[in-house]
Amino acid sequence: MPANPFETDLDKNAANYVPLTPLQFLERAASVFPNRRSIVHGELNYSWAETYTRARQLASALAKAGVGKGNTVSIIAANTPAMYEAHFGVPMSGAVLNTINTRLDAATIGFIFDHGEADVLLVDAEFAPVAREALAISKRKIKVVDIADAAVASDSADPENGVEYETFISGGDPDFQWEYPADEWNAISLNYTSGTTGNPKGVVYHHRGAYLNSMSNAIGWSMPQHPVYLWTLPMFHCNGWCFPWTLAALAGTSVCLRKVEAGAIYSAIAERHVTHFCGAPIVLGMVINATETEVKPFEHTVHVMTAAAPPPPSVLAEMQSRGFHMTHTYGLTETYGPSVICAWNEDWASLEPQAQAEKSARQGVRYHALEGLDVIDPETMTPVPRNGEVMGEVMFRGNIVMKGYLKNPDATKEAFEGGWFHSGDLGVMHDDNYAQLKDRSKDIIISGGENISSIEIEDALYRHPSVQEAAVVARPDEKWGETPCAFVSLKPDAAQLSEQDIVDFCREHLASFKLPKTVVFQELPKTSTGKVQKFKLRDVAEAL
Amino acid sequence: MPANPFETDLDKNAANYVPLTPLQFLERAASVFPNRRSIVHGELNYSWAETYTRARQLASALAKAGVGKGNTVSIIAANTPAMYEAHFGVPMSGAVLNTINTRLDAATIGFIFDHGEADVLLVDAEFAPVAREALAISKRKIKVVDIADAAVASDSADPENGVEYETFISGGDPDFQWEYPADEWNAISLNYTSGTTGNPKGVVYHHRGAYLNSMSNAIGWSMPQHPVYLWTLPMFHCNGWCFPWTLAALAGTSVCLRKVEAGAIYSAIAERHVTHFCGAPIVLGMVINATETEVKPFEHTVHVMTAAAPPPPSVLAEMQSRGFHMTHTYGLTETYGPSVICAWNEDWASLEPQAQAEKSARQGVRYHALEGLDVIDPETMTPVPRNGEVMGEVMFRGNIVMKGYLKNPDATKEAFEGGWFHSGDLGVMHDDNYAQLKDRSKDIIISGGENISSIEIEDALYRHPSVQEAAVVARPDEKWGETPCAFVSLKPDAAQLSEQDIVDFCREHLASFKLPKTVVFQELPKTSTGKVQKFKLRDVAEAL
Repeated sequence: MPANPFETDLDKNAANYVPLTPLQFLERAASVFPNRRSIVHGELNYSWAETYTRARQLASALAKAGVGKGNTVSIIAANTPAMYEAHFGVPMSGAVLNTINTRLDAATIGFIFDHGEADVLLVDAEFAPVAREALAISKRKIKVVDIADAAVASDSADPENGVEYETFISGGDPDFQWEYPADEWNAISLNYTSGTTGNPKGVVYHHRGAYLNSMSNAIGWSMPQHPVYLWTLPMFHCNGWCFPWTLAALAGTSVCLRKVEAGAIYSAIAERHVTHFCGAPIVLGMVINATETEVKPFEHTVHVMTAAAPPPPSVLAEMQSRGFHMTHTYGLTETYGPSVICAWNEDWASLEPQAQAEKSARQGVRYHALEGLDVIDPETMTPVPRNGEVMGEVMFRGNIVMKGYLKNPDATKEAFEGGWFHSGDLGVMHDDNYAQLKDRSKDIIISGGENISSIEIEDALYRHPSVQEAAVVARPDEKWGETPCAFVSLKPDAAQLSEQDIVDFCREHLASFKLPKTVVFQELPKTSTGKVQKFKLRDVAEAL
Repeated sequence: MPANPFETDLDKNAANYVPLTPLQFLERAASVFPNRRSIVHGELNYSWAETYTRARQLASALAKAGVGKGNTVSIIAANTPAMYEAHFGVPMSGAVLNTINTRLDAATIGFIFDHGEADVLLVDAEFAPVAREALAISKRKIKVVDIADAAVASDSADPENGVEYETFISGGDPDFQWEYPADEWNAISLNYTSGTTGNPKGVVYHHRGAYLNSMSNAIGWSMPQHPVYLWTLPMFHCNGWCFPWTLAALAGTSVCLRKVEAGAIYSAIAERHVTHFCGAPIVLGMVINATETEVKPFEHTVHVMTAAAPPPPSVLAEMQSRGFHMTHTYGLTETYGPSVICAWNEDWASLEPQAQAEKSARQGVRYHALEGLDVIDPETMTPVPRNGEVMGEVMFRGNIVMKGYLKNPDATKEAFEGGWFHSGDLGVMHDDNYAQLKDRSKDIIISGGENISSIEIEDALYRHPSVQEAAVVARPDEKWGETPCAFVSLKPDAAQLSEQDIVDFCREHLASFKLPKTVVFQELPKTSTGKVQKFKLRDVAEAL
């Protein structure tokens, strides 16, 4: 067989092949838009030239401290300029960025330091106390850099040896010649999943995936150049769903937000002209339930991307009616955050509002950078019928699926069994190729041999005008095996409701066998990331 | 040294690594927006489901004909549905797509068949005569597929053995299981450069670059989902600057255009609600010089991307004033078409219109998918000072630089000397990091030891309200070595002008030593791609 001429003397070289990395977007933004605003944080403003300089100084200061490839730099911080800079400065030094959930307890943070092999810790003064405890628990010798902030009382996680962030980076070279990763498969960041039980697993991202998902965010969400982005979503969640890098690509402005509150959100929209923000349904709840004094009018369209938990259709509809343009996405830490999008389809334009909202509340279709999404029977590894009824496991395949779990080859192997990433989420595939979540594997309720989706019952509960939050779990039952047990919290100003009121209301929307057999009125327990802790509710249900 | 945990047990596998290819965008568009319009061509309409099916049928029919990896499928066609389908169907079969400039002569096309090793030729009836001649010249046995079109008289490039396109693809499997390329570095297309002299060189693109530039087009131009794109730019130019793939990513609508004319452009804008089109300055000239009956009013903004030759600032300003939002890009066949963009910078907002237009007429900054752009002294390979004055060669480095020239290792090596792609274009770098072209290396005029940019003189000439087109070349001169010789064509309704009128006008804008010493009034000779053939003008200038 003759040589293929298209593969002869046409090799990669320095001119035509460069490893993909989102770090280059910062260099570009600083080169093209040096004077444009990169970050606003209270009274503080930075330009792209300044942000690039500060990131290079951070990289240089880390390098001078002996940090480079193979090292880990952890950060515990709110959504502040230092947190943004770390997304560039840390990988520019060659090290891996490990963002840590600020709501975790000291023991878990200590575990993460040890398992992730942290060498340096950047820590916001607000979180110095928990960091001090975690450092005492950790077996590692970790260099501490304390981040001071005018909005927070001064504090140090390491009063003896800690150095302040501004002092630390001022020792760095503003012209530091950072290098592209030698391989785009190299790790850029490490994000621990907040499992509801057991030790968290360390999800490793690579430069290639971070580049591709930051592009995909922009394309999937139709983001133009220069958005004004409000940081309601923590950057410690999947690296802020890759938006720190997207914003550099688009030379957008990051509006920082230390504390996510309705008043602050409306003020930022009205005064900073915020055009985009992301948030879990809990953030949408804040916006909807804002008091009259918190709400500020705005004229422009604000684009909101929501994910994390499936938003009830009624919440999506309410947001739309208030002038927010909603986009619903879905993903996991293992898939760089959003990797599935409920792309709006003009075929739905003629539907009734409720039917439209139901279409829009589905998880949807693959992101551009995700090559495969399907609902698959994990036993046979064959896709389920596209009928919106047969449940299977939602599985992912493509360039925005993690490298794997750090130092956990068994979990990695299990997650990638059969050439797909197994999400552990149960769902259905509709005939229009949109996937819809029905439950976490462990949250499904099996009653009298029938699978009942807890989400479907929750959606019905959320339609009740007095319901603030709702969660449904399985309650053991001698006759049925399991029955649905609903936990409900009511809005502050809502009138008292009885168990029967709730069941009667659900009857309008659900088949009889899906009705909750028990209704408990209480506040819902949540994880540090705002997810409802169903295992705690399950304990309550069992003890009833 | 201990093993780096971030590189241990975290390898690529089927779940987390997929070769990049723009072909997947078509699968996505068909899956998510099956009923949305993909292509409009006169009375003909296709949906994304139909376009995907037709592309798969084309791939399957090619596979049945024995075509696959290592084969070449050439196409000579106007901007029609078949041309669009070929951008997906041909590489889905594993073969390389070779689009051929429809304006080439038979001898050159014959050369391309032989050098590119064409196995199949898809040919639009309009170009059957020249294809017949070229096939007779070629030494290869090429299977011919004739594309009929209601707008053109029926004809065949191979009346004995040719098969009609619809018949050909109807034999293909609509569910053909196309495969991703085994390697994203594999060739996707082959584009011959239209050199003004010598044999054309075959530029090879890979799947990775095609994917990245199609994403980069969308992000750099702030294209939202579902643009309506008018095909004023030939798809045989750098694969339509990668826009066939961009449009699949955005599920946009392609409005075909067999013949580029002012009336047809305005009709498409008014009736089809075209939102975007691309074109060389010659297309802008058509739009500006349209007659009153050709112009149709439109309310929406139309985004126009122009490149190919540096547009005179006056042309950009005129387009803006007519309601077109202009974006100026620059690139070469070797860089997948547009790879440099004159990104609008708000720092310019306070400038006078003419100063703004001058900023906007510069070539600009790197595309997101191009990692390096600089103006470099080719002798020393050091960047020129960023002062807008010292000339050097414009050089490119990154993922949207070609694999190389097919079967031409010497030219490939020369082009990539020193780790940069050498464009052969001369330019300067301004202090704001925007590059500006001054000339092709061979077009520079050296007069009395001073380098004079022919483009600078042409810009001055274009400011004259009566000048339709202008080109400046070097004329040999005993005293000065060379002097600038201007060739000028006047607008149809313009009054006669003298050589002195032109020189006097230029004196307002140019230093004395840059003034044309000779002015010739004539139509400008052009290549098949619409570029002015300066070598012919040089012959005229020498003979004067």
